[in-house]
Amino acid sequence: MTAPDFKQLRRSYGFDEVALVPGDVTINPDQVNTDFKIADVTFTIPILASAMDGVVDVNMAILLGKMGGLAVLNLDGVQTRYEDPAEVLAEIARASKAEVTSLMQKIYSAPIKENLVSERVQAIKQGGVVCAVSVVPANTKRFAPLVAEAGGDILVVQSTVTTARHTSKSERGLIFPELIESLPIPVVVGNCVSYSACLDLMRTGVSGVLVGVGPGTACTSRQVLGIGVPQITATLDCAAARERNLKETGRYVPIITDGGFNKGGDICKALAAGADAVMLGSVFAQAEEAPGHGYHWGMANPHPDLPRGTRIEVGTTAPLKQLLFGPTSMTDGSQNLVGAIRTAMGFCGAATIREMQQTEMVIAPAITTEGKSWQMSQS
Amino acid sequence: MTAPDFKQLRRSYGFDEVALVPGDVTINPDQVNTDFKIADVTFTIPILASAMDGVVDVNMAILLGKMGGLAVLNLDGVQTRYEDPAEVLAEIARASKAEVTSLMQKIYSAPIKENLVSERVQAIKQGGVVCAVSVVPANTKRFAPLVAEAGGDILVVQSTVTTARHTSKSERGLIFPELIESLPIPVVVGNCVSYSACLDLMRTGVSGVLVGVGPGTACTSRQVLGIGVPQITATLDCAAARERNLKETGRYVPIITDGGFNKGGDICKALAAGADAVMLGSVFAQAEEAPGHGYHWGMANPHPDLPRGTRIEVGTTAPLKQLLFGPTSMTDGSQNLVGAIRTAMGFCGAATIREMQQTEMVIAPAITTEGKSWQMSQS
Amino acid sequence: MTAPDFKQLRRSYGFDEVALVPGDVTINPDQVNTDFKIADVTFTIPILASAMDGVVDVNMAILLGKMGGLAVLNLDGVQTRYEDPAEVLAEIARASKAEVTSLMQKIYSAPIKENLVSERVQAIKQGGVVCAVSVVPANTKRFAPLVAEAGGDILVVQSTVTTARHTSKSERGLIFPELIESLPIPVVVGNCVSYSACLDLMRTGVSGVLVGVGPGTACTSRQVLGIGVPQITATLDCAAARERNLKETGRYVPIITDGGFNKGGDICKALAAGADAVMLGSVFAQAEEAPGHGYHWGMANPHPDLPRGTRIEVGTTAPLKQLLFGPTSMTDGSQNLVGAIRTAMGFCGAATIREMQQTEMVIAPAITTEGKSWQMSQS
Amino acid sequence: MTAPDFKQLRRSYGFDEVALVPGDVTINPDQVNTDFKIADVTFTIPILASAMDGVVDVNMAILLGKMGGLAVLNLDGVQTRYEDPAEVLAEIARASKAEVTSLMQKIYSAPIKENLVSERVQAIKQGGVVCAVSVVPANTKRFAPLVAEAGGDILVVQSTVTTARHTSKSERGLIFPELIESLPIPVVVGNCVSYSACLDLMRTGVSGVLVGVGPGTACTSRQVLGIGVPQITATLDCAAARERNLKETGRYVPIITDGGFNKGGDICKALAAGADAVMLGSVFAQAEEAPGHGYHWGMANPHPDLPRGTRIEVGTTAPLKQLLFGPTSMTDGSQNLVGAIRTAMGFCGAATIREMQQTEMVIAPAITTEGKSWQMSQS
Repeated sequence: MTAPDFKQLRRSYGFDEVALVPGDVTINPDQVNTDFKIADVTFTIPILASAMDGVVDVNMAILLGKMGGLAVLNLDGVQTRYEDPAEVLAEIARASKAEVTSLMQKIYSAPIKENLVSERVQAIKQGGVVCAVSVVPANTKRFAPLVAEAGGDILVVQSTVTTARHTSKSERGLIFPELIESLPIPVVVGNCVSYSACLDLMRTGVSGVLVGVGPGTACTSRQVLGIGVPQITATLDCAAARERNLKETGRYVPIITDGGFNKGGDICKALAAGADAVMLGSVFAQAEEAPGHGYHWGMANPHPDLPRGTRIEVGTTAPLKQLLFGPTSMTDGSQNLVGAIRTAMGFCGAATIREMQQTEMVIAPAITTEGKSWQMSQS
Repeated sequence: MTAPDFKQLRRSYGFDEVALVPGDVTINPDQVNTDFKIADVTFTIPILASAMDGVVDVNMAILLGKMGGLAVLNLDGVQTRYEDPAEVLAEIARASKAEVTSLMQKIYSAPIKENLVSERVQAIKQGGVVCAVSVVPANTKRFAPLVAEAGGDILVVQSTVTTARHTSKSERGLIFPELIESLPIPVVVGNCVSYSACLDLMRTGVSGVLVGVGPGTACTSRQVLGIGVPQITATLDCAAARERNLKETGRYVPIITDGGFNKGGDICKALAAGADAVMLGSVFAQAEEAPGHGYHWGMANPHPDLPRGTRIEVGTTAPLKQLLFGPTSMTDGSQNLVGAIRTAMGFCGAATIREMQQTEMVIAPAITTEGKSWQMSQS
Repeated sequence: MTAPDFKQLRRSYGFDEVALVPGDVTINPDQVNTDFKIADVTFTIPILASAMDGVVDVNMAILLGKMGGLAVLNLDGVQTRYEDPAEVLAEIARASKAEVTSLMQKIYSAPIKENLVSERVQAIKQGGVVCAVSVVPANTKRFAPLVAEAGGDILVVQSTVTTARHTSKSERGLIFPELIESLPIPVVVGNCVSYSACLDLMRTGVSGVLVGVGPGTACTSRQVLGIGVPQITATLDCAAARERNLKETGRYVPIITDGGFNKGGDICKALAAGADAVMLGSVFAQAEEAPGHGYHWGMANPHPDLPRGTRIEVGTTAPLKQLLFGPTSMTDGSQNLVGAIRTAMGFCGAATIREMQQTEMVIAPAITTEGKSWQMSQS
Repeated sequence: MTAPDFKQLRRSYGFDEVALVPGDVTINPDQVNTDFKIADVTFTIPILASAMDGVVDVNMAILLGKMGGLAVLNLDGVQTRYEDPAEVLAEIARASKAEVTSLMQKIYSAPIKENLVSERVQAIKQGGVVCAVSVVPANTKRFAPLVAEAGGDILVVQSTVTTARHTSKSERGLIFPELIESLPIPVVVGNCVSYSACLDLMRTGVSGVLVGVGPGTACTSRQVLGIGVPQITATLDCAAARERNLKETGRYVPIITDGGFNKGGDICKALAAGADAVMLGSVFAQAEEAPGHGYHWGMANPHPDLPRGTRIEVGTTAPLKQLLFGPTSMTDGSQNLVGAIRTAMGFCGAATIREMQQTEMVIAPAITTEGKSWQMSQS
C-alpha cells in the first residue's frame, strides 16, 4: 500500500506558549519610541480599546485619546440603541449569571437609531481627540456616510470573521474598494487570522487590519464553532502578509492584534510577533472609568439563536492612567502596561515598534511549569 | 555503534488540540447545504445518534428522523432483551455508582428475543422515517435477514473494533462481501480508526464506515486495553482511505466520526477533518426525550469479565429540537448544533460538507490555556 | 556568527502519552498465546512481581508461580534481615507518614543473615514453583553461590542503575561474564534504559534485562537526581538493543519492563513497545495476599543519606487471582490484567507476544484531554 | 500565492521537561570530583548562593564559603542601605501579602552608604573565606574600586539582563573591557540567556557568566514583560558559547545557571545541560541560617514603577549543612544536594563536572504524568 496523502496540520501558538529572548544590545527604557500610525494619524502608544460595550463609551474614548491611544466606540451596541446607555449597562451588570444572556438577547434586539450614530461621533470629537467607531459589515453602507459626515476620523468595519469576498443571497454585499473610494476617512477592517485572508483585505485598500478570531476572554467561538487561531500564530501570519503587501505595493498597512491579552507580557509578545499595536478588551474593562461596571462581554454574546460569548466579571481595579502608566505595586503584569512595553523593548534592544517586531521568540512552557511548584507547595 | 532502528511513533490529535482557520471567503449560514448520504438515502443534517441504550429507543429514532438525521437502534441491548425496556432503563438510572456495573452485567445477560428484533424495526418504520439498527458481528448472520424482512432500511454492524478479516476458532466468521451480496439493504460497518483497516472495510462493499475507537465519554478502552486513537487523527486517516477508495473504485463511501464529542465545535472539527457525518452519544443522552433518564453508557460496559466503560450522568438539559436547532441562550456550544455547523461552514467559506472537509486546521493549545486565566482568577 | 553546535535532545514518551492502534486483522482473545521465556523456563503469563518487600514474600512467590507468572523475592530487604519479617512489615504499615522514612532507615540497617538467604529459597522451592531471587551487585559474589546451592532457579542482579562496567575504588567489582560462567543458573540483570547500556549488558551473557529507571510509583529518582527515562521510550530503545543482539549473536535475550504501571492498558502498551514481559510493583501491592498490608515502597527509600522513594498507600483491593484473571465489575483497568492483555492482543491481531511487539502505536494526548470534560463537569 | 516567510520559533525547555539518561558506565559516588573554578579560585562544590537579601548576609557568606561553595552578597539592597539590615529584614517578613511590595518599594528607596560597602566586604574576609559581592551596572563604576580596596575577591555585575553593549542617554555607560582592565579582581557578569549575548560578554574578558532570565521562583518577568528563556535551553545555548569562546581564545569561562531550581534533580540537569555551577536562591532561603526568616524575593520586586517579582514564603526547613550534605530522611530531593550531585554523576558515569556536561538528556514529560496517578487517587 502506498503512503496516503494525509492533511497536514500546522502547530499554532498562543501567548502562554512563547517567551521573548533578550537582545544582544540593551537600551534604556526612556529612550525607546512607541509610536504607532493609522494612515496619517500618529498615536504615542500602540494600544487601542476594543469596540465593546463594557469597555468603551464616549468618556473612555476621550480619556484614552488624551493619553495617546485610541478607543473604538461600538455603533452596533447599546450606545446607538439607547439614548441613555448607562442605565442599560447597569442592568446588565446587575443580572444574574443564569439570566444575563437572555437579557442581552432582549436588550440588543432594540433598533439602532441613526441620530445616535451622529451624536456619539460628535461627542467624542468635542473631547478633542481622534474619533474611531466600529460598524458591522451589514450596517456599513448605511452608517459609514453618517460617521464621516459627523466628523469621525477612522471607520472600523468589524465582525467575528471579515473577508474581502462574502457570499450572501440577501442583497449586493459590501465591496471594500468601493467603500474606501467613497469615504473621505481611513477604513480599518477585521477580524482575520490567516496570511491569505489578511493579504486579500490589505489589497482592497484598507488602512489597517484587526487580527484575532476566537482568543478573547469573553469569546466562546472555539467551543461553539471550533474556529479560532491562537494569537501569536495569527499575528505572525498576518505580519508576513503585511510585509508581502509592503513589498508589492509600497503601502505599509498596520496590523492590530485584537483579543486574548491578560498581562503586560502578552502585549510585548504580540509586538514581537509582528503587531503594530494591540487592542485590549478585558484589560480595559477593569478601569475605574470603564462603562461596564467591572463586567465585560463581546458582540457575539447577544446573538439571538447561537450566542458565542459569556459575560465575564473582571472587577474594577484602578484608574485607566494607572493601568497604562503606573506607578504600581502590583507584581503580576496587570498595571503600567506602557512601562512594561518600554522596559521589554529596552531589554530586547528595540528602539521602535518596528524593531521590536524583529525580537527573537522561543516556544516555552507556560510559566506555571518552572520554578513555581515550590511556591504552590508552600501556600 | 551504528544507530538503532527505533520504532517511529506518529503524533495523533484529538478535538481539544485543533482549531479551524476561517476561510478567505465567507458565506451566509442560510446558504450552506448540510446534506449527507448513505447509499441512496439523503439526510438533511449530518448527524446520527449512537446505538446506545441510554440514547436511542423507538421514539428517539422517529423524532430524530423527522428532524432530518438518523438514530440507530441497538439490537444487542435492552430493546431486544426485554418486552418493556423502559422499566429496565429506569432501574439502571436508579442504581448507585458502586452497584451499576454488576447490575448491568446481570441485565445484559438476559437472552435476545428474535420477535423483539422485528417489532422494534416495524415500530420505527411505522413512524414514517428511515430505520437503521445495529447488530454485533457475532449476531449478524442471525439477525440481518430479520431486519431486512421487517422493513429495516440500513444495517449497522458494529463492535469496538471491526475488521474485514477476523480470526476465530468457534465457527466460520462473518464475511462482509457475502453479507452485502445477500442483503437487500445497505450495510454500515465499524468501528475502525486506521487508513488501512478503513480501506479494507470499504473494499468489502460497505456503504459507510464508523470511525472511532476509545474516544467516547462512556468508554474506558484506553485505560483497560491501551487502545484508542484520538478522533481528529482517526478521521483524517479514514478520510484519506475514502479518497483512495473513491479514486480506485469510483464509489464514494461516507465516513461517520463516532464518539468523543462534547460541543458543537467538536462536530465542526470532525467535518473539517474529513467526516461526512458525526454520531453523537452523550450529547443526545441529554435530550429530554432520551430513554436513559440523563444517564449514558456504552455496550462495553456490561462485559461479564472485563467491562470497559462507565455509566455517565449527563443530566437532562433540553428537548432534542432545541439541542439541534436552538434558539438558545447557552453560550458553551451545547445547543443549536446545526446552527453551529452552518455558522462554521459560513466562516470557513464551505457551501457543502464536501467543501467543509477542505477547511484548514491548525494544532492549537486547548482553549483553557489562552485568555481564560483572567476569568478563572476572578471567579 | 556561524550556527552553534547545540546538544540535541530526543523526545521521550511515557505510558500516558501513547495509545495502541487496532490492527487490520482481529483475533479472538481465547486464541492468543501469552507465553514468555527466560532461558529454558517458560511462563504462561508475561508478568513478574517486583522484588520489593511490600509486594513479594515466600507466599506470594508460590501463589504467582502457580498462576503462571514469576515473583522475585528480594534478598536485600526484610526477608533476609529478620527471622520474622511479617512483624517488621506490620510496623512499617503502622508508621505515620512523617516517621516512616527514618523508621525504614533503621529497619534496613540490620545485617543480612546468610542462613535466611538459603531458607527463603528453599521455602519457595517447596511450594513447587520456579524460584527467582534478587541481590544487589555489591552482594552478588557473596550470595549467588548460596542461591544456586539452595536450589534457586533464576538470579536477578538488580540496582537502580546497573551497567556492564562499574568503577569503584573499594575492591574488584562484579564482572558479569565471570559470574555467569561460575553459576549454574540463568542471570537476569537491571535496571537500564538505554540502547547502548542494554546492549552492553546483553553481550555479557545475561538471560534477561530489566528496563526502567525512575518511573515507579514509589520512586523519586527524577526529583532527587534528575535521572529517569519514561518507560515507552526506554522499552523501545532496549527492544532495539535486543534485536541487534539477536542479529549479531543469535541469542534472544528477553527484556522486562519494570515499574510505572498503573492499569492494564499500560501493560499492553509496554508489550507493544517491545517488552517480552512486565514487572509490577504497586499493582500487586494491592493484592489481598501482598505482604505490605496495602503499602508499597522501593529499595531506594531506606537509603541512609539520600533516600529516593516514598511509601505509597495503595490499599488492598482484591485477591491476586482476581487482579490477574477477573472476573470483575471494575471498569478502570485495575483488574483482570491477563484478560486485558488477551483482549488487546485480539484487537491488535497479535497471536503471540512477539507479534504484539509489532503493534502500531501513536503519540496521543493523555486520556483526560478528550471526551472527559463532560464527565467532570457533571460529577 | 507563494509560501510566506514566517518567523521561526525554536522550542525551549525547562527543568521539568527533561531527564537524564544513566550512562553506559557507572562510578561510585565517593570517587567523583565536583570542583568548580572562577579564574584561579577553586571551590569544592559547584554551588553559589544568590545575591538576594533573603538569602545572603555576611554570616551566610562565611558559612557557605567554609563548606566549599560561594555566597554572593548583594551590595544594592538592605545590606548597604541600613546599618542594621536584620531589623529591616524582620519587617519585610512580618508584612502582609497585600502591603509587602509597597513596603519594599519604600525600604529600597533609602540611599546606599559607601562605608557599608567596605564594611560588608571586610566582615566576610574576616570570616576567612572567598568574598564575592554584586553590584548593578549603574553602580559599578562607583563601587567596584571600593570592593577591591576592601579586599573583595570576586566582583559580580548583575542585573535582570546585562549585555556587552548598552544604550543610554544619561551618561557614558559601563564598558566591560575597561572595567576589567582597571580592576585587580575577576569580574563575573549576568544575566544572559542566549548564545550570542553570552559570547559577546565572554569576549569582553569576564571570568564567568550568570545564565538565567525569568526562571526564578520570585521573578515575574514573564508575566510582566513576556521575557524569559527556560533554564535548560538557556544553559545549553550559553554552554555552546563557552565552547566556541574556548576554541577561539583558549580561555575557559565558566557559566553559572542562576535561578529556577526547586530540587536536587534540577541541579543535576543544569550541570548535564552544560553548567559549570549553579546559583540557588529559594533553596537556600530555607536554610535556618538564611537572613530572610523563611521569605525570599528578588531585586526586581522593589522597582518603584514596575515591580516584577513577589515575596515567596519558602519556610525554614533545615540547617545549611543538612541542605547541602545531609543526612536526611526527606525523599523529595530538597536535602543533601551535594549527595544528589555525586550520586547522579555516579549513575551517569561522570568523574568530573566537565564530564557531567556530556550526559545524555531526553525531553520527558513532567514527573507528575507517569506512575503517579495511583498515588494521587489514594491520598
